[in-house]
Amino acid sequence: MSILDLKQAVLEANLDTVRDGLVMATFGNASGIDRASGQVVIKPSGVSYDTMTSEDMVAVRLDGTRVDHHLRPSSDLDTHLVLYRAFEGIGSVIHTHSTYATIYAQALVPIPCLGTTHADYFCGEIPVTRYLRADELGEHYVAATGEAIVEALKGRDPMAIPAILVAGHGPFVWGATPKSAALNALILEECARMAWFTRQLNPDITAIPDALRDRHFFRKHGNSATYGQEKVV
Amino acid sequence: MSILDLKQAVLEANLDTVRDGLVMATFGNASGIDRASGQVVIKPSGVSYDTMTSEDMVAVRLDGTRVDHHLRPSSDLDTHLVLYRAFEGIGSVIHTHSTYATIYAQALVPIPCLGTTHADYFCGEIPVTRYLRADELGEHYVAATGEAIVEALKGRDPMAIPAILVAGHGPFVWGATPKSAALNALILEECARMAWFTRQLNPDITAIPDALRDRHFFRKHGNSATYGQEKVV
Amino acid sequence: MSILDLKQAVLEANLDTVRDGLVMATFGNASGIDRASGQVVIKPSGVSYDTMTSEDMVAVRLDGTRVDHHLRPSSDLDTHLVLYRAFEGIGSVIHTHSTYATIYAQALVPIPCLGTTHADYFCGEIPVTRYLRADELGEHYVAATGEAIVEALKGRDPMAIPAILVAGHGPFVWGATPKSAALNALILEECARMAWFTRQLNPDITAIPDALRDRHFFRKHGNSATYGQEKVV
Amino acid sequence: MSILDLKQAVLEANLDTVRDGLVMATFGNASGIDRASGQVVIKPSGVSYDTMTSEDMVAVRLDGTRVDHHLRPSSDLDTHLVLYRAFEGIGSVIHTHSTYATIYAQALVPIPCLGTTHADYFCGEIPVTRYLRADELGEHYVAATGEAIVEALKGRDPMAIPAILVAGHGPFVWGATPKSAALNALILEECARMAWFTRQLNPDITAIPDALRDRHFFRKHGNSATYGQEKVV
Repeated sequence: MSILDLKQAVLEANLDTVRDGLVMATFGNASGIDRASGQVVIKPSGVSYDTMTSEDMVAVRLDGTRVDHHLRPSSDLDTHLVLYRAFEGIGSVIHTHSTYATIYAQALVPIPCLGTTHADYFCGEIPVTRYLRADELGEHYVAATGEAIVEALKGRDPMAIPAILVAGHGPFVWGATPKSAALNALILEECARMAWFTRQLNPDITAIPDALRDRHFFRKHGNSATYGQEKVV
Repeated sequence: MSILDLKQAVLEANLDTVRDGLVMATFGNASGIDRASGQVVIKPSGVSYDTMTSEDMVAVRLDGTRVDHHLRPSSDLDTHLVLYRAFEGIGSVIHTHSTYATIYAQALVPIPCLGTTHADYFCGEIPVTRYLRADELGEHYVAATGEAIVEALKGRDPMAIPAILVAGHGPFVWGATPKSAALNALILEECARMAWFTRQLNPDITAIPDALRDRHFFRKHGNSATYGQEKVV
Repeated sequence: MSILDLKQAVLEANLDTVRDGLVMATFGNASGIDRASGQVVIKPSGVSYDTMTSEDMVAVRLDGTRVDHHLRPSSDLDTHLVLYRAFEGIGSVIHTHSTYATIYAQALVPIPCLGTTHADYFCGEIPVTRYLRADELGEHYVAATGEAIVEALKGRDPMAIPAILVAGHGPFVWGATPKSAALNALILEECARMAWFTRQLNPDITAIPDALRDRHFFRKHGNSATYGQEKVV
Repeated sequence: MSILDLKQAVLEANLDTVRDGLVMATFGNASGIDRASGQVVIKPSGVSYDTMTSEDMVAVRLDGTRVDHHLRPSSDLDTHLVLYRAFEGIGSVIHTHSTYATIYAQALVPIPCLGTTHADYFCGEIPVTRYLRADELGEHYVAATGEAIVEALKGRDPMAIPAILVAGHGPFVWGATPKSAALNALILEECARMAWFTRQLNPDITAIPDALRDRHFFRKHGNSATYGQEKVV
């Protein structure tokens, strides 16, 4: 994918999150990466969704230096960069404050895998990071958010659990492409909503059986070479 | 109804579920059957709702062999076929992941008949299947889902209870025609939603009196020759 | 108001309830009365909202005999007629299955007056009828519903409490005109919704002080000659 | 900003609240103030949102005397005036009955600061006023509402907590401009909604750490000369 195509895809992912009701006001941003050139493309800061074009998308290098552009990148850029450096398989990162995912982040409760809708996209519960410490709230705050995400995902495959809840803040979601990351953000929100109501209806309910979860996840994600090939498909 | 008309009716039922907010992303499919020829018409797999036409609908025989078509049928086809073979009175099957019906399916809680909205379309509670066993999750999984539905409905009239919740998954709904099945799917979702909030408001509430339930159900369904003629209408 | 104008007003009230999301599928009907001629105008049965015109509205006399028309009146007509005969001050009746009002009706819980939004339109809690008895479910069922409403409102001013919840069924709402009855139906739904969440948030909350309730209700309804003139305005 | 520009901005803020779903029926009003001339511009009473123009906005002086106009100002004018006189930094006041903020007002429960969405706009919990006393419900009622708001905010910076819940009634929100007040009203509603669901999910959850709250609030509001410059930015 050329950088121009990537900018178009990142624009569309940003607009998808707004159209899907995942982003209120300016609480959201999507980015994508071209692994060949190491360039990350992200939504600019403070441009209206109504008039935003693909040319407004800002390209930076993985170390955060600017490739082009008169516009400033999203203020959450550093979180995205940390995730791209830590998770080599991902091609896009999206941040929203979507209602129910944010509710779980605020409650410090992981989203359990209570059904096949969840298992079709996330192979297990969605974890919550710890709160950032006071010493992480200075200039390094945005990058520290990324580091807390990586810490919380330790020991899990980021392509099998392509989302996280930042404590007291909201979800970050990723995927192979901007399009799939935007879909993951939408599914995450619906799964969070359904999990909330499911647990209130039956507080004793636990995650679906592992075999059922894997049956669904690997049906949709079985082509990935990095995990799961030895499991039941 | 000709196969062409059936394809049009199945297309419209698919679009109805999207318009009514019952289907997020691609989590849904509707089919219909022509009992005279034994042909089942179902949504193709992986075609966008925005551009889908009646010609895209795929016709297969009751044993699953293809009648026509370059497109693959919905991956849930085998569940539909099991239901058509088991329930002779039904003319259409619809699967959605509609939010509140799925919440009940995830909680493993039947939807109780708490009001006349429910009783106008469903003559009693909507049951939940058991979880599928590990040995049912292989190639036979989709058909096994249908078999679990038939098992859970044993002893009930499928036209009096035209819906089921598949444990940890979501609802399957049916009806005499694609149009009525789509309406049943919509009513089911609203009844599930109202039941959830009713029980939280008054945890002691039980189903409405049987006589009131029957008064409503048989007012709308009294012409059916297969049940209920001896009851109060 | 001429019968033609009344038919137009009744049409608009029916369309208002659909536009406001109070009526799913065909679960609703609005009527109005011309007290001078004793004619009641009501939605026809089984005509689509999309194509319905004011000429489709059906006029009947207070005893239920038809004044005109090839179309059948709404199947809930007899409930409306009982209310017009019992409550002389009302000019319009509306029935919906709006979600939260129906939830209270299903839970057999009155809607308490928890705020000024409620008090601006309803001067106290909205009562629930008893369930209809088995002997009331025959041919007389629809009229018996009206009689249960009148019974439940005994001792209250129907213009001060212009709504009721029919047990296990849903709300009936009324007002001086079709326009005001439609507004009452909308406000009732929002008050039911807010009451549900208010009580879950604070189970100990009770109704707002009577003086605050009256301050709001009689600000909007103080011109009525039939009640409240001696109270604080 | 000229009075003509202010009228346009106030019109837009009124329309924003309707578009954002914060105002049902006529339950809302927005105003703005030109501090140089001491003129307050507010929505007229009883004009439809569909046809309302900037010329319909009514200008009054801070003492409530009319500057211009054939239309009557909103019946809530006196509450707005009390707030403009008490809080010198504010440029706009908005009143809505938005669903979840009103639920908290009805439950007499402050909205806790459970996440960064809240902290980006409100530097702490949103308080609730006391109920108005019976002796405050006469002609002075609307002004007394403003006085109860000022009383409830005592000891807090109105620019750091630009919203309040009037007990049993609903929210009043303010800001530097009509545009920012309308945004505050929208964010308040979403924060109230998320707080409700967060607390039900985890009843033990408490406010986010103060340092995290301040990090977010002062990032967006750090240019204000009136508070916070000495805190961590």
